[in-house]
Amino acid sequence: MKQIDLLIYNIGCLVTMQGSPKPRAGTEQSKVHMIHHGAIAIQGEQIVAVGIEEEVRKSIQGLTVVKELDAQGCLVTPGLIDPHTHLVHGGSREHELDLKLKGVPYLEILAQGGGILNTVQATRKATEEELCLQAKRSLDLMLLFGATTVEAKSGYGLTLEDEVKQLRVAKQLHESHPVDIVSTFMGAHAVPVEYKGRSEEYVNLVLEEMLPEVKRLGLAEFCDIFCEHGVFSVEESRKILLKAKELGFKIKIHADEIESIGGAELAGELGCISAEHLLATDTEGIEALKKAGTIAVCLPATSFNLRLQKHAPARDMIESGVPVALSTDYNPGSSPTESLQLVMTLACLNLRMTPEEVLTAMTINAAHAVGKADTIGSLEVGKQADIVLYNATNLAYLPYHFGINHVHSVVKKGNIVVSEGKLI
Amino acid sequence: MKQIDLLIYNIGCLVTMQGSPKPRAGTEQSKVHMIHHGAIAIQGEQIVAVGIEEEVRKSIQGLTVVKELDAQGCLVTPGLIDPHTHLVHGGSREHELDLKLKGVPYLEILAQGGGILNTVQATRKATEEELCLQAKRSLDLMLLFGATTVEAKSGYGLTLEDEVKQLRVAKQLHESHPVDIVSTFMGAHAVPVEYKGRSEEYVNLVLEEMLPEVKRLGLAEFCDIFCEHGVFSVEESRKILLKAKELGFKIKIHADEIESIGGAELAGELGCISAEHLLATDTEGIEALKKAGTIAVCLPATSFNLRLQKHAPARDMIESGVPVALSTDYNPGSSPTESLQLVMTLACLNLRMTPEEVLTAMTINAAHAVGKADTIGSLEVGKQADIVLYNATNLAYLPYHFGINHVHSVVKKGNIVVSEGKLI
Ligand SMILES: [Zn+2]
Ligand SMILES: [Zn+2]
Repeated sequence: MKQIDLLIYNIGCLVTMQGSPKPRAGTEQSKVHMIHHGAIAIQGEQIVAVGIEEEVRKSIQGLTVVKELDAQGCLVTPGLIDPHTHLVHGGSREHELDLKLKGVPYLEILAQGGGILNTVQATRKATEEELCLQAKRSLDLMLLFGATTVEAKSGYGLTLEDEVKQLRVAKQLHESHPVDIVSTFMGAHAVPVEYKGRSEEYVNLVLEEMLPEVKRLGLAEFCDIFCEHGVFSVEESRKILLKAKELGFKIKIHADEIESIGGAELAGELGCISAEHLLATDTEGIEALKKAGTIAVCLPATSFNLRLQKHAPARDMIESGVPVALSTDYNPGSSPTESLQLVMTLACLNLRMTPEEVLTAMTINAAHAVGKADTIGSLEVGKQADIVLYNATNLAYLPYHFGINHVHSVVKKGNIVVSEGKLI
Repeated sequence: MKQIDLLIYNIGCLVTMQGSPKPRAGTEQSKVHMIHHGAIAIQGEQIVAVGIEEEVRKSIQGLTVVKELDAQGCLVTPGLIDPHTHLVHGGSREHELDLKLKGVPYLEILAQGGGILNTVQATRKATEEELCLQAKRSLDLMLLFGATTVEAKSGYGLTLEDEVKQLRVAKQLHESHPVDIVSTFMGAHAVPVEYKGRSEEYVNLVLEEMLPEVKRLGLAEFCDIFCEHGVFSVEESRKILLKAKELGFKIKIHADEIESIGGAELAGELGCISAEHLLATDTEGIEALKKAGTIAVCLPATSFNLRLQKHAPARDMIESGVPVALSTDYNPGSSPTESLQLVMTLACLNLRMTPEEVLTAMTINAAHAVGKADTIGSLEVGKQADIVLYNATNLAYLPYHFGINHVHSVVKKGNIVVSEGKLI
């Protein structure tokens, strides 16, 4: 060791989330490791010491400390990870709010060219630059709310060219923005209008052209699919995810959002890294996820915004040993929010998760859900220095004091990228 | 006219809310006046011209414009008004979240010295300086989220001395902070522990000592009371509000939050300016409010945070001709949020209000609810220049894109106090 580039000290409550080679489930989901009077020493992009301040200072004795950051007794956690977003898209859909309030059914909105079709059209029309600018604004917000890594799905292009365009924007942002992006190909997000009634042909397009080409271009690590009654069947989902696996993609699935048609079981059968939504998942589904070690990604902002009385059975999942992660599901239709902090509140209120379970769900479990738990999701020696400092002294304060932004500073790969709640 | 101190121009969508000598009810609640390509000319603290940019520029021709603010095509509304907050208090209650999630009933939390008793204790213990510092942080947040006038209630002191202390803090903030504070005395917020079983004596203390002394000191414009089964009865509420009226206070009432015990009817009978909560208000209650012209202040963040399935019948009230206002109900127990923007979303989703009705509820109707509609609540010549500029181009975008802060700039009494989302 030559020098310490950044020393964060005077940490009142340091939640490390250390020691989770596997996603945390059951009682492990709530066992967060807390240190009072903590410190973190960083060299380059990596953590080289973390623990009680006195011990950290001892371990780096004699080394020059280039920069110090006084945490002023506040709460510090690993950088938050948002494992399910539809970050890159064109347009916005506030004009549908009125229809929604009047009780117009979603299918009728769709019939009028609204809903996802509207976003597909706007995304196809937009240039790469326009998509990039819009997504960057959201990514800035995510970062300001504490996210340091974000998963981003394609799925609003629905042609090879437009899917590739979305994924290229994600790649460009990953390279130019402090927030890291994990890319997911989701050509099977919806059957586009031009394939109406010919969904088999569209599935073939995804299988034969999109998947191999996206792989060849190296534009996505994951493949995801919307497995739901009226969208893609279990059989179609199996076909696509098997092909994706064969090509070397890691796999995810949007399952049981509205009906329980066997999506969670399919996730278990294929060994999906994660299954998303899961509002309608039953005992068999939970059992299948548990057996396969699949992570349940719950999206309470979506159920909130859609005014569903039904929520994902997060408590049952945790108690059955299924690791739970949480996400914004940021998208222009069902969940137009970038705030993981509002998701914290919604997870406590509506999913009955504790603040400790929530933090696990947004750090180490989310890191596993995006396949990056070896480098992010906890504060440990050798891991990437992705760190959030809050205007709060304890974990429960974050979901308790809701609707605002508690983030004071964010460190990404050893660099201070947010300070006093502002991008720098 | 000598000069224009501030000219806001290039306003894409200017919502003036003009022309409301009375609170807006029925179909009037949604009739907002919108101008495209608008401008506002300000002299000192006042608006001297507002309308289509071309016409505004014509009307001020020849005058020196000291400062210009380019709205860059964005949405501009009157400064938001939060007509129901418990701004000044000691402590916070995040430690109760865990009990709440475990389903521990509120009465048991109270029995353990938690709930409102905890806040009363913390408020009594705190010095004026400590209370001021804590309240200032919240007031800053309210301003950042677009509020330019905030009502603030006492009611966590529950002794003459401590009630006066809370009100003095509100006064101090009103004088030192850009946000204007309208003060409400609410000694009858709860029966303090030391009067347990002797509520009649406490009511007498409020009647005989607190009310006259608060009046003598000129520390509050309004008097409010918590009229609810187990707190203050309709008879006690009537006594206190009548005495308050006699002393020259304007009156408000927390009514029908949990049970319909006749609070709304009492509000009508006494001619309360506003009645608050109203979750349990029935047809008779709505009729009474309508007859008296009492404003219904709905608090959807509270029902959200308390996970109530029940919401105030805002639609019924609007359609019956009761003017509806909206508020955060900011307080450390049932609604720890400063964001009127989240309240916008909650009002749309859970109260089924339209974005236009919501804006009326947070501007002109809220201005009437705090007795200030002659100077604030709309953008008209002669009114105070309290103005919000958003990172949005239309009204529906605010509740649609939820959980974040859309405010770009805030002008208070002609001064730019928030710019690029930051206090200046
Ligand atoms: Zn999704
Ligand atoms: Zn209240």
